[in-house]
Amino acid sequence: MARVVCITLNPALDLAFALDTLTLGAVNRPRHAQLEAAGKGVNVARVLASLGHDVVVSGFLGSDNDGPFQRAFEQMGVTDAFVRVTGETRINAKLAEASGRVTDINGPGIAVDTAQVDSLMVTLEQQIATTRPDALLVAGSLPPGLDLTAFGEFLTRLKATGVALWVDTSGDALLRAISVAPEAVKPNEIELADWAGNTLESFEQRLSATTRLHQTGVCQALLSAGADGVIWVNADGAWQATPPKVQAINTVGAGDTFVAGMLHGRLSGESEEQTLRFATALSAESVRHVGVGNAQADDFSLLLQHTRVQHLHASRTEGAL
Amino acid sequence: MARVVCITLNPALDLAFALDTLTLGAVNRPRHAQLEAAGKGVNVARVLASLGHDVVVSGFLGSDNDGPFQRAFEQMGVTDAFVRVTGETRINAKLAEASGRVTDINGPGIAVDTAQVDSLMVTLEQQIATTRPDALLVAGSLPPGLDLTAFGEFLTRLKATGVALWVDTSGDALLRAISVAPEAVKPNEIELADWAGNTLESFEQRLSATTRLHQTGVCQALLSAGADGVIWVNADGAWQATPPKVQAINTVGAGDTFVAGMLHGRLSGESEEQTLRFATALSAESVRHVGVGNAQADDFSLLLQHTRVQHLHASRTEGAL
Repeated sequence: MARVVCITLNPALDLAFALDTLTLGAVNRPRHAQLEAAGKGVNVARVLASLGHDVVVSGFLGSDNDGPFQRAFEQMGVTDAFVRVTGETRINAKLAEASGRVTDINGPGIAVDTAQVDSLMVTLEQQIATTRPDALLVAGSLPPGLDLTAFGEFLTRLKATGVALWVDTSGDALLRAISVAPEAVKPNEIELADWAGNTLESFEQRLSATTRLHQTGVCQALLSAGADGVIWVNADGAWQATPPKVQAINTVGAGDTFVAGMLHGRLSGESEEQTLRFATALSAESVRHVGVGNAQADDFSLLLQHTRVQHLHASRTEGAL
Repeated sequence: MARVVCITLNPALDLAFALDTLTLGAVNRPRHAQLEAAGKGVNVARVLASLGHDVVVSGFLGSDNDGPFQRAFEQMGVTDAFVRVTGETRINAKLAEASGRVTDINGPGIAVDTAQVDSLMVTLEQQIATTRPDALLVAGSLPPGLDLTAFGEFLTRLKATGVALWVDTSGDALLRAISVAPEAVKPNEIELADWAGNTLESFEQRLSATTRLHQTGVCQALLSAGADGVIWVNADGAWQATPPKVQAINTVGAGDTFVAGMLHGRLSGESEEQTLRFATALSAESVRHVGVGNAQADDFSLLLQHTRVQHLHASRTEGAL
């Protein structure tokens, strides 16, 4: 069992509606509606806690509507170290139609100021000093009021604690995170191409860019490579995983499940091959339903079997450079 | 100043998103998002309180997320007599695009049982006995668990208190309400046609059906008649109001504003002509913006002037029968 602090700077309550079809300009009556504590770090925490790890959740929460979060944290069995800010955490609407089409409406989130960022940093440094976690994860988008410079400083201070720092964010925040050289990041192809400064059309180009990402100081360089599955480069080599075929019902939470699976494997001392297989299979499990992946699913061992993991030969890695 | 008890059996938190355009199947970033305590009776209470009346709000609220309601009631200066039920009050999403198109997604609401309906009845009878209100308003849809028979009994008991009972609901619940002969109802053309058993194609047919509605025992029979504005029949005669032309931005709350304006006029002892003019103008004021009508708007006297109210001659009323 490992200790992980999962930090969500801009969490959300997800308001998920299940509709037959969404008719624009009309009053729609959903079959089902559910309000759930969400945010990428909260999702990762949910998976890690279900796998038996000791998890602390932190970040910013609006004090006016933190009830659903408190109940979720209690249910998940994680420690609540969120800093409260005045106001309401945003509510994101997810409109899922029977066809499988999902329309998201994501609000900007609650604004934070410098004093609140400092307060979070103090909270985290105390948590880290007293509980000595094995990893820190910063996941999701940045709240209004936290600019890229402040985000870079925040990550630098977290990295300075000496605890392995994983960052799962996107766009400019991801590019800023890479510049801090955290333990791990997981860009998608567009983001990695942005960082690399060239398009990534072939597998060789994708592997080459991921390898360069690793060489700049990101110990675990992970690429979500669409049809190519996942490419992972670290000091011990390079791997590629292709998920098993499943019927995709809801992909929300698949990326968070993958990150949680990777953290689980790394922190449990499993081999790279086992780690990547588990994370990829668990992520595939999650897309079959609403919510994060469940390693207790009846057929999970089958999903593991049908996940293809290749150790890329050193020569191929070299050749790609 | 009058005393009014506004009852909302199936309230909602409105989650309003302002979007440039809504793109289906994509992640949409709204310009603005707002969570607000809503429900038809709450909206009417908001208008009545702003007009200086002494308002009690009641009905059912989920105990897990009543914070936004408590804050709204405090701000509105109304007395909270809502019965709490376990769970969360539904959240309705309202997706407003720059084009003016509004897409509503309205959840079913929190289910209530017989004991909770009884508990509400006891609360209301106590309120009525101690505060002797001038009117009761029951507004909005029925929550799951409250069927038409139970709704009819609920209204019958409220009517038996002797306090003027206004009901603003729709569909089958409206038909059931009419059968109880409350002080006032406000069907639209389709609902009145349903009740009358024939289509209402001409003005004469609409006036005739509204008059029949009055004759069955509904003292204030009000018809929302689309292009014809509003038709009102009571013991003193029949009136028609046509609203002033305004740029419609958001029609949510226009009907509630109208009902509040009518209650205001009736309970303030104003003439029928004044009452209908005020309610119609205030309703028009409300569609120019998000939210209910504001009688303090700079140009409200102009809106009153441009509202057309006709006292329909007795002969015309007779002729229409």
